Amino acid sequence: MHGVRVSDELRKLLGSDKVVTDEQHLLSYASDMIPEGQLRKLADQLPPRKPLAICFAEDLEDIQRVVRFCAQERVPVIPWGAGSGVCGSNVPVEDSIALDVKRMNRILSLVPEECRVTVQPGLIGEELEERLNARGMTMGHFPSSIACSTVGGYVACRSAGQFSSRYGKIEDMLLGLEVVLPTGEIANLGVLGDGYYRGPLMALMAGSEGTLGVITKVCLKIEPMAEKMDFRGYAFLDLDDGLQCMRRVMQSGLRPTVLRLYDPLDSLMAGFHSKTDEGEDIHRAAARFSGLKSVLASAVTELNAKGLAAGLLRPSLLNRVVELLPTRSLLIAGVQGSNAEVTKQWDRFGTIVDSVRGEDLGPEPGLSWYKRRYAISYKQSKIYQAGAFVDTMEVATTWENLGLMYRAIVKALSKHVFIMAHFSHAYTQGCSVYFTFAAYRPTARARKSTYQRAWRAALEAVLRFNGTISHHHGIGTLKRWAMTRESPGGDELFQAFKRAMDPAGIMNPGKIYNVDA
Amino acid sequence: MHGVRVSDELRKLLGSDKVVTDEQHLLSYASDMIPEGQLRKLADQLPPRKPLAICFAEDLEDIQRVVRFCAQERVPVIPWGAGSGVCGSNVPVEDSIALDVKRMNRILSLVPEECRVTVQPGLIGEELEERLNARGMTMGHFPSSIACSTVGGYVACRSAGQFSSRYGKIEDMLLGLEVVLPTGEIANLGVLGDGYYRGPLMALMAGSEGTLGVITKVCLKIEPMAEKMDFRGYAFLDLDDGLQCMRRVMQSGLRPTVLRLYDPLDSLMAGFHSKTDEGEDIHRAAARFSGLKSVLASAVTELNAKGLAAGLLRPSLLNRVVELLPTRSLLIAGVQGSNAEVTKQWDRFGTIVDSVRGEDLGPEPGLSWYKRRYAISYKQSKIYQAGAFVDTMEVATTWENLGLMYRAIVKALSKHVFIMAHFSHAYTQGCSVYFTFAAYRPTARARKSTYQRAWRAALEAVLRFNGTISHHHGIGTLKRWAMTRESPGGDELFQAFKRAMDPAGIMNPGKIYNVDA
Repeated sequence: MHGVRVSDELRKLLGSDKVVTDEQHLLSYASDMIPEGQLRKLADQLPPRKPLAICFAEDLEDIQRVVRFCAQERVPVIPWGAGSGVCGSNVPVEDSIALDVKRMNRILSLVPEECRVTVQPGLIGEELEERLNARGMTMGHFPSSIACSTVGGYVACRSAGQFSSRYGKIEDMLLGLEVVLPTGEIANLGVLGDGYYRGPLMALMAGSEGTLGVITKVCLKIEPMAEKMDFRGYAFLDLDDGLQCMRRVMQSGLRPTVLRLYDPLDSLMAGFHSKTDEGEDIHRAAARFSGLKSVLASAVTELNAKGLAAGLLRPSLLNRVVELLPTRSLLIAGVQGSNAEVTKQWDRFGTIVDSVRGEDLGPEPGLSWYKRRYAISYKQSKIYQAGAFVDTMEVATTWENLGLMYRAIVKALSKHVFIMAHFSHAYTQGCSVYFTFAAYRPTARARKSTYQRAWRAALEAVLRFNGTISHHHGIGTLKRWAMTRESPGGDELFQAFKRAMDPAGIMNPGKIYNVDA
Repeated sequence: MHGVRVSDELRKLLGSDKVVTDEQHLLSYASDMIPEGQLRKLADQLPPRKPLAICFAEDLEDIQRVVRFCAQERVPVIPWGAGSGVCGSNVPVEDSIALDVKRMNRILSLVPEECRVTVQPGLIGEELEERLNARGMTMGHFPSSIACSTVGGYVACRSAGQFSSRYGKIEDMLLGLEVVLPTGEIANLGVLGDGYYRGPLMALMAGSEGTLGVITKVCLKIEPMAEKMDFRGYAFLDLDDGLQCMRRVMQSGLRPTVLRLYDPLDSLMAGFHSKTDEGEDIHRAAARFSGLKSVLASAVTELNAKGLAAGLLRPSLLNRVVELLPTRSLLIAGVQGSNAEVTKQWDRFGTIVDSVRGEDLGPEPGLSWYKRRYAISYKQSKIYQAGAFVDTMEVATTWENLGLMYRAIVKALSKHVFIMAHFSHAYTQGCSVYFTFAAYRPTARARKSTYQRAWRAALEAVLRFNGTISHHHGIGTLKRWAMTRESPGGDELFQAFKRAMDPAGIMNPGKIYNVDA
């Protein structure tokens, strides 16, 4: 069906106030926050691929109408929340439409005594949390993107928040879903219906990134807000001691609110000051690598093009320089509960920290992290314009593989990009590691190529250690090539499911696996 | 393919020591422990439907060989662990074979510091637990059937143990699965690979009751054994106070090892003695309803046919009599940890119990429960021969619906059968309720008909309260009629999955949903 006819038909179905086709709007739906997309477009000088139309659904029936129409006419549907994803799960395909759920942003049910909340998928995380807090409750889900991401998006991408060691990932909080399947049928899943179907199908929907249906209602566990939260910092002689500490904490049964270990460079970036050394390390480092810190701070926050160019053009040199940095690692920890509970948890922490020769730095590093915990960059495009890129990668594996995998990834990345990392989202059996990497290249083509080589090398290293290639950002288009490597046969099974559930093949094609692109 | 040829071919594939076709063996694979099967056979005088052969697989390759052969020849495969299921998921279909994994019973990997264990599916739960205990670890999974059920079976049926409020259900402990898919392909799922596919597909396998593949390896979370476990009993004026207490305990963040609330009759059966009343209630009850307790004890443990006949022929009368019983309910609770932690948890319990006018009965009722916690009946057949039946039903719903659903089920069942119930497996949002029901009917046909009417009436009541029709026993053949009612559209989706994954339709047909029977 021709694009204009598609939007005309959609207007007839939904009313013209719900269908938008002006150029400016369409352009802003040409990509989510995936860096690769921008790099590729700049390199290959491709015009952005826009959707034919954006439908702003206001209720379940709107979604059903759109999905049924698109199934009949074989028009691909890209479900949209806030578009904050970084793996390309919102990137349009040829002649597709965007189905935006942001107008569906109401809280449908909130009774604190039931310890659950039911919301529409387009509700922004921060707004939900504020509304819960006003009733003395919390969802415990605090992704860095909380101000610009939706509850539906959390579920669609298996999101994790900063307090996940205490509250779990979104799939652990998930009690129920209403989904419009690709045929337009409604599925009601979960809400203690964990008998077969309602439970497993809910698990299949969580993380499906819009490929198996549109989430129209989300029911989440909530709980009373903590009486008190308290934060501290600890320093370790090296990364392995720090990892050993995290492992022992989780295996001891403690469930800290926060547990984040920074590798040496990331520790430096986090403004880590060791009490005993009275900042000597940092000042020596700062003197030796003049401007290093500000250069890197620029790379991940606000770009200083000159500095970047100087430092990031030779990442392998820069990485080798970082190897000379003090090896100490910083652990940020947080606990919660009553005053007595907080004290008791710090006591148990102290014993574990001592057992791995760690040093208690007091509350300051923890508080400082807490204050700046949402300080992420919204200046990507400036970085690109200056000839650099920055991206992040979150992968995970078991404790016994974690240090090895981290080093293998650093090694694999270090010739291509400048790297730092921290370990967060810890479990009794393992942990995720979060890399930030950046590079400068004078031409768009070179940037794209460096970027792609870096990602490929990094994911290959993950696969060698049987790690998971995505802990909580999703797969989208970015990592789909590695999915079959991670789980041989997965592509065929996914394709089989997808065909079974979505016979017209309309739901967000080409995402997760490249089976129907 | 003719039965004899099937077993000949299987012998060629596996070796003759792994294929059994003697009558006595086949007969013992004609059903699992589902009561309905026995009742129906007795009533309709059907000969038992036996499998054509039993294959005792010894490794992954054996399983692949059998599955591939059966897919090619379209021979249905019924995977078997210990056959302890009570919902019919092991009941053979016409011209099927049983694929027994009991010889695959090794521990493949156990490193306490990794907090996980990897085992073959045929390992008996009790043996695994003993082997873990010898290393200071526990899996925390204690179903009543632990002595006669396998790890593979736990996963296949989404099992729950008596300590689930502390450790979760088996799906919460599940870290990884190796599965032979219905095509003979191998899928490796989970083990911190919670990126899309490894995580969701694992969730889909858990509870699939052999309909989507054969589980060949299971990786579970384990943790250090508790320093100390401690048990107590509490009495409440009525069931609602007891439920309120359970709810407040779970919502307070406490995670007791055990939390079981008995309804008045079940409290009586559990030997509940109130300290303050000095047993008055019980003796008065005993005098009024002479022999009641022993009659009921017989019905659920060792049959006293005369007593049963007298009491159970008129369940509605007996149920009305029970309404006159003292209304007090007994709560069994257990906590674990260091001495200090145990004391602290009991203190918090005490405050909550006081807030709902409960009475602390001291450790005795708890210890007494703990000692007899595996005392389940293995004398079903005697009960059937005497003209009675006894069965159990475990369903769940949210706290706000729980008391209402319980009463609706009691009402629905009470004209057909004699009933008692307890509430266990509590969550912050809801709880499961476990009914035991029994009846006597002079003819096999009347027994079958009463039994079926009772189940139908009970599940209809569950559905009215949006409950789940199976909390941890599974679906099998017993509850499949209600699955589509629980989740409209579920049958079509399941069929679509099933066809996609199992194009030859060989894996345990007719279970969960009746789509391919």
